[in-house]
Amino acid sequence: MRTDLERFFNPRAIAIIGASQDLATISGQPLKFLKSHGYKGTLYPVNPRYPEVAGVKCYPALADVPEVPDLALILVNASRVAEMLRQCGAKRVPYVIIFTSGFSEMGGEGVRLQQELTAIAREHGIGVIGPNCQGMMNITDGVFAGFGSVFNADYEPGPVSMVSQSGGFGFSVLNLSSKDGGLPFRQMVTTGNEIGVSTLDFIDYYIQDLKTEIIVGYIEGLKDARRLLEVGNRALAAKKPLLMWKVGNTEQGQLAARSHTANLGGAMVLYKAAFRQSGILQVEDIQDVVDYGRAFRCGRLPRGNRLAIITISGGAGILMTDECIARGMQVPKLAPQTGEKLRGFVPAYGSLLNPVDVTAAIFNNTELIGQTLQAIVDDPNVDCVAMINASLQGELAAKVATQIVAGASRTDKPVFICWSARDAVAPEAYAMLDAARIPRYQSPVRCGRALAALSWYAEMQRRRERRSSERALALSSAAARRQLEGKTADVSEHAAKRVLAEYGIPVTREELAATPEQALKIARSIGYPVALKVQSPDISHKTEARAVRLNIGSSEELAAAYEEVLSNARAYNKNARIEGVLVQEMIKNGVEAILGVTNDPLFGPAVMFGLGGIFAEVLKDVSFRLAPVTASVALEMIEEIAGYPALAGARGKPRADVEALADAIVRLSALAVDLKDHIGELDVNPLFVFAEGRGVKAADALIRPKK
Amino acid sequence: MRTDLERFFNPRAIAIIGASQDLATISGQPLKFLKSHGYKGTLYPVNPRYPEVAGVKCYPALADVPEVPDLALILVNASRVAEMLRQCGAKRVPYVIIFTSGFSEMGGEGVRLQQELTAIAREHGIGVIGPNCQGMMNITDGVFAGFGSVFNADYEPGPVSMVSQSGGFGFSVLNLSSKDGGLPFRQMVTTGNEIGVSTLDFIDYYIQDLKTEIIVGYIEGLKDARRLLEVGNRALAAKKPLLMWKVGNTEQGQLAARSHTANLGGAMVLYKAAFRQSGILQVEDIQDVVDYGRAFRCGRLPRGNRLAIITISGGAGILMTDECIARGMQVPKLAPQTGEKLRGFVPAYGSLLNPVDVTAAIFNNTELIGQTLQAIVDDPNVDCVAMINASLQGELAAKVATQIVAGASRTDKPVFICWSARDAVAPEAYAMLDAARIPRYQSPVRCGRALAALSWYAEMQRRRERRSSERALALSSAAARRQLEGKTADVSEHAAKRVLAEYGIPVTREELAATPEQALKIARSIGYPVALKVQSPDISHKTEARAVRLNIGSSEELAAAYEEVLSNARAYNKNARIEGVLVQEMIKNGVEAILGVTNDPLFGPAVMFGLGGIFAEVLKDVSFRLAPVTASVALEMIEEIAGYPALAGARGKPRADVEALADAIVRLSALAVDLKDHIGELDVNPLFVFAEGRGVKAADALIRPKK
Repeated sequence: MRTDLERFFNPRAIAIIGASQDLATISGQPLKFLKSHGYKGTLYPVNPRYPEVAGVKCYPALADVPEVPDLALILVNASRVAEMLRQCGAKRVPYVIIFTSGFSEMGGEGVRLQQELTAIAREHGIGVIGPNCQGMMNITDGVFAGFGSVFNADYEPGPVSMVSQSGGFGFSVLNLSSKDGGLPFRQMVTTGNEIGVSTLDFIDYYIQDLKTEIIVGYIEGLKDARRLLEVGNRALAAKKPLLMWKVGNTEQGQLAARSHTANLGGAMVLYKAAFRQSGILQVEDIQDVVDYGRAFRCGRLPRGNRLAIITISGGAGILMTDECIARGMQVPKLAPQTGEKLRGFVPAYGSLLNPVDVTAAIFNNTELIGQTLQAIVDDPNVDCVAMINASLQGELAAKVATQIVAGASRTDKPVFICWSARDAVAPEAYAMLDAARIPRYQSPVRCGRALAALSWYAEMQRRRERRSSERALALSSAAARRQLEGKTADVSEHAAKRVLAEYGIPVTREELAATPEQALKIARSIGYPVALKVQSPDISHKTEARAVRLNIGSSEELAAAYEEVLSNARAYNKNARIEGVLVQEMIKNGVEAILGVTNDPLFGPAVMFGLGGIFAEVLKDVSFRLAPVTASVALEMIEEIAGYPALAGARGKPRADVEALADAIVRLSALAVDLKDHIGELDVNPLFVFAEGRGVKAADALIRPKK
Repeated sequence: MRTDLERFFNPRAIAIIGASQDLATISGQPLKFLKSHGYKGTLYPVNPRYPEVAGVKCYPALADVPEVPDLALILVNASRVAEMLRQCGAKRVPYVIIFTSGFSEMGGEGVRLQQELTAIAREHGIGVIGPNCQGMMNITDGVFAGFGSVFNADYEPGPVSMVSQSGGFGFSVLNLSSKDGGLPFRQMVTTGNEIGVSTLDFIDYYIQDLKTEIIVGYIEGLKDARRLLEVGNRALAAKKPLLMWKVGNTEQGQLAARSHTANLGGAMVLYKAAFRQSGILQVEDIQDVVDYGRAFRCGRLPRGNRLAIITISGGAGILMTDECIARGMQVPKLAPQTGEKLRGFVPAYGSLLNPVDVTAAIFNNTELIGQTLQAIVDDPNVDCVAMINASLQGELAAKVATQIVAGASRTDKPVFICWSARDAVAPEAYAMLDAARIPRYQSPVRCGRALAALSWYAEMQRRRERRSSERALALSSAAARRQLEGKTADVSEHAAKRVLAEYGIPVTREELAATPEQALKIARSIGYPVALKVQSPDISHKTEARAVRLNIGSSEELAAAYEEVLSNARAYNKNARIEGVLVQEMIKNGVEAILGVTNDPLFGPAVMFGLGGIFAEVLKDVSFRLAPVTASVALEMIEEIAGYPALAGARGKPRADVEALADAIVRLSALAVDLKDHIGELDVNPLFVFAEGRGVKAADALIRPKK
């Protein structure tokens, strides 16, 4: 596949196959817009029915075009696309955008047609964009190769590049963000069904593109999702914020999964895990794109998460405090010397605490803003500043803006502005702020969200530096692989725990008994109380089958229980293959956790952590990461769940052995990678976590082989 | 206090006390804006320094004004406000807005000054608005009595009335909502420190005001919070949506509370409970006000929560589906006949499922929109419709809008539009939709949110009808009141459970023993195993003091345990008053829940429900309602928590006795009302909930008397 996408965005010549003389139709619009936006290369409409289109010479077939265009646009009917793509291949056209719909999104015949296109593209090495897309817009260089209402407008060029799987909605985001949101774009492409160049290919290109500073992706689903982590990390290293909008949270129809881990997983959970793992900012509305984009254009990152708020309206100050604290920032006490300085000019009925309320007194004295801002940015307890100007407008607004711009220029701390005046009544003030790249927002809530996003991203950058020397643990066990080789039925507890043990995950003391006598002997060596569990690949839910007895205190009890669990198992499934009865130590005094592995077809192996029982299953209070993970990532997973205080020592209980738990997660993630060709799903449930220093122990496990 | 607020909003004459000749200052602006917006009554500037202000005759003192104005504005320095207010009293002015700052918000001397104002207002029966506020705007009648930048603009009058405790931010909301959001307002007032007419007084007025259709409140805190429920219910009955924005979520400094219930409560939780209880829509940003306001202006409510989506962009359809499902709506299958109709005109590569994707084919055939809309509104499985038009603009947009307006006029189902074209490029289309009151949104996320708000409100209206005949249970126990009379120390378990039993809440079988012999006798009558618990008002946390022994299986064990728990209790607190040792049945096989009562100084008694242990304490997975509650509200509380599936029969367990649990909540709420003068906090922790039909039982309880 082609990766020199510079040529795609800046084609020297473009062929338009199926160009229509009716410039209002879909097949007429691309030529119209290329012309109207001043495309500087050569245009070759191709259509046997016309000698010319919109004053441009038209060719009967692509073969007749006198040079090899860098890009061809295919606008013909679905049934004729394959033939046109073949002609592009014959002509050695490097990039082709297929606009036509009616392929895999239609099902049936469309799927077959799409497969044919994929094969042709591969055969000829064509970089295909689409099918079922709306084209491309290179705003910086004036290449408008697409259709749709938003192509009518001119756009100010800027540093934001975007790729969207949705055509209609993607271009709406560009249009509103750029025009109403004041966030200027550089390049935008829609990828539709993505049989060739993918969303991640384009993001990779934007990471390398020197003039792209901020990257936006809108996705419904990635076929190469596993790459997300790598691409995200690359964007982070390049210091280009990557904003991703993933839709389709409510996908139904996941295949029935047997393990809890697989039930709790699913695509959206893994997307979010990948975003978090690689510092990708998740966005959830058009306004987020605008707000975060403005934030990042300031070119500053706070050194910590401590925010000071200056306001002329108490109400808005409270609001922003709420929003920022809810999103993980601090609104700390100011240094004592700051309070003293402020006392010199803030009115007595204002507030010298954080938020600093300078009150409507600024109507009478605009100097107040500059003085206060200076005092605040000088405060060592403050990493970033938000200033709230309510609806100040006109001349007063301009005076205030002048002071803000001057104050912000004397610090490298981010200064954000919440200013609720309408654009029309404070144009001069707003122009000054925009020129100085000082992010501004009409709502304190939006301002707070954007600041928190900037602060989170700054923390991701610091985390990247802290973790730069960490390497994931790699483990390999030929024995485990052999054990799972060719398995199709569920692997029962004892065997599954032998696999865990291969990777250094502690498991209960236990042994498999084939007779009651063996069971007695094993129990004696382990010591009472013990548990008995029938092992069968055909009985995954042993408790449901009543094939388990816990807390057996004596040899008499054991003998009776042995017969009982076996006969229950047979009653549950008379054809079940019985491997034996597991005799196992009983565990006391641990917190029950659940660990798991899911091996997603798109993302590959991932690990899950949660607390046991209904915490995981009902409350879905679990964390996921793509495998492998380092110890610091494992700790992050542990601390991330809402129930974490139960491990950290809530309710007067001792702190649990969080380090040993993290180590078990690391090892499980190494297992997941090593066995990724063998394991479909894996549950360790429960994993007992003992008090600090006492480790963890897997008390039950289930492996479902990869199909 | 005055309640004829019609006179406040429509004063026949206004005195402006402290009017300045400098019209740019705070004390100069009100006169300027009253004049510039064409106030039709008489204006009386009062200032001994000027013969006239802005061409209006000025009076040296209020006494000199030749009539009694309906409204006076006080704009003088804080130290002189009391004197001016007294003069208003002497003149018998019914309403006074005090703009001046420097009162309770400043602390110290300001608090004293404010108390003085309160006393004067009460003495003279003046309806005071403020102090520390920004005044009032009656847009419909052109009375602009306030200051601030937003007073410069003219506003289109409409049906939305608002009251805000914040001046600066409140008017920003009005300004942006009205001007940029297209949501026209009728009246707006800011109440500042609220020593007189309160937010809820104004809301009550708006409920009665015939021309107000939608009410918005912005609050930081209510001094008369308990009234919220009553006012909310009145608004619901009047079919006027009440949108409330409560800020101050992160209030610190709650008093240390001993019970879990009080710890989990706090103002914000109770505000949210009151909102939910009375159908008040909570808003959280300016955009919510605009979006919900537009939704309600359509004047239609869906009969159910089933949404059909029609889209020309697949991506936006997915997005709206996500948003609506996450907010409790359904996006159901369409009726078979609808699919058949659609097949007649939707292109084969579109989607006939819900969302219906008619694709960009509408570029070539705009009829598609009208045909599809008609088929969808005719579908009996559909309660409301959202149509997504991406960025369609210009002439095409106008054609599409024409069809939408026609289609919407032929149904009473709400039809919402998501249309991402900028205002400037689809003015004709948008004007048509606005004229027909068809709500439109630029983002599918915002459109989905607004639809879900409308749907929630419609459900609240249905709930109100369903519950109209429900009466809360009223219980009264003289014995319980006597038992708590004069108590200051914590009431220990046994006594607290006697109180519960008075209200019909089942408690464990138990008896207080004064000697080991008594304990043995009680245990025999209850039957082993039993629990022993030392009872002392000085030991609230018995487990921490090791003054509890569970699962005592025999009389030998009991004798030893009796001595042990007593000596542990004495070791824990040697001065503890020991009431005896409680001998109690052991409970098995129940789900542990926690019930509680908190008696908030603002809201009065409220009840809490959650699951036991870390569910409530760590995950804060609890629900609150103001007391009393009916059985249907109690069921709502139970079903609301995330852990509800654990009661409903998750993990193959039997369904718990939810009805008995609801009955216990109802009875606890009746207790909370009956004992509201005696109880500060109450925990029932745990309350065991047994399997269906087997009831509940309180196993421990703690009452903290009201201070």
